Amino acid sequence: MNPMSPKRSAALDALSLLPDEGVVGLGSGSTAAHFIDGVGEAIRAGKRLTCVATSEQSRQQALRLNIPLLENAGPWRIDVCVDGADEVSDTLDLIKGGGGCHLREKIVNRSSRYNVIIVDETKLSPKLGLRALVPVEVVMFGHAATGLRLQEFGEVSLRIENGQPWRTDGGNLIYDVRVGEIPDPARLDLQIHLIPGVVETGLFVDRADLLIIGSASGARRMQKRPFVPARP
Amino acid sequence: MNPMSPKRSAALDALSLLPDEGVVGLGSGSTAAHFIDGVGEAIRAGKRLTCVATSEQSRQQALRLNIPLLENAGPWRIDVCVDGADEVSDTLDLIKGGGGCHLREKIVNRSSRYNVIIVDETKLSPKLGLRALVPVEVVMFGHAATGLRLQEFGEVSLRIENGQPWRTDGGNLIYDVRVGEIPDPARLDLQIHLIPGVVETGLFVDRADLLIIGSASGARRMQKRPFVPARP
Repeated sequence: MNPMSPKRSAALDALSLLPDEGVVGLGSGSTAAHFIDGVGEAIRAGKRLTCVATSEQSRQQALRLNIPLLENAGPWRIDVCVDGADEVSDTLDLIKGGGGCHLREKIVNRSSRYNVIIVDETKLSPKLGLRALVPVEVVMFGHAATGLRLQEFGEVSLRIENGQPWRTDGGNLIYDVRVGEIPDPARLDLQIHLIPGVVETGLFVDRADLLIIGSASGARRMQKRPFVPARP
Repeated sequence: MNPMSPKRSAALDALSLLPDEGVVGLGSGSTAAHFIDGVGEAIRAGKRLTCVATSEQSRQQALRLNIPLLENAGPWRIDVCVDGADEVSDTLDLIKGGGGCHLREKIVNRSSRYNVIIVDETKLSPKLGLRALVPVEVVMFGHAATGLRLQEFGEVSLRIENGQPWRTDGGNLIYDVRVGEIPDPARLDLQIHLIPGVVETGLFVDRADLLIIGSASGARRMQKRPFVPARP
């Protein structure tokens, strides 16, 4: 048997949290994609799940797998959401948004009763900000003014793809901010939020209930809050 | 001579703050429209002004008047910005966004060295929240979930026009929240900002430097910070 990829290993472990019937949040990115594959298999095997996708990419993957999806407008009552992260601290605070999907991810996360984050070991960090830049989604109008204001927090770069400013699913832009070690992520999140033109930051503070860390030899868990299955 | 309309009276008084040369922020709404008319006249009379518009409507009015406009992306160094408000408290805190333009207005306000608010007397209120609802701009994705969360602060209604959800210049939606008297506007602004999906609130806390109140008999001023003209 081939050794399993760390990302896939974390995703497989998360599948054990799927209810027989309920609403599941589908994260974005390469690790979450393994989970979405598994959700498709679980539905084919008989689980009655409907899902909410956190990006157009995840939505397209779900549609290909015939996973039933709820409408984008919400509201939703999500039993469990499984998503990746770019950096995870000892206190299970996160930086997300390397793929630029952190706005929808944060909205879905807040509508979920239980949030599971699946990563490989390269994402672990003693202090938030040592590994990842902080992505900030910013509206088009005045974006260069907003970008200038973000320089207060560190070196700033507008995310570019194929020579053009990269646009999010919502049509906005991303500025990546090299903040360095973040002593107080909640405070930083708040400060950045108060800049007019900022839509959402990639800082997820106290939004992970369970962390699953995949490796070639299996998966281990760090639990912040226990999982209580919904009553049928 | 006909008595002047209170809104026009406030707008005329604000025109005295126009520099001979510089960058001017153009507010939105019926009172700011009088000011924009005056800016057009001032340019025809020889002032060398370039402007930043806070809404598509103000932009169109400025274009009709041949007012030179800076690009929407910014950054801008705005000498003075003149805008209206829906409610003004004793401490010159504001509720804006009755016209749904408060996102761009707040971005331009923050890029302005001096912010002038022009109103008629019906906008004055001892405490913020007694007169106006608080408009909150919200992204489309998950908007019904975001709307539900806003109910924590008061009765919530999605802004509708011609039977359809009204869209802002940025393509987002507006939820109007009946908060009632607001004891601490800065705190409320912060709490609403932390809801994922919220782009901007209509609360402007400590963002007015000068208030001009127009009436049929003239205009009076309440100054929070003195106007220091830019060095040439």
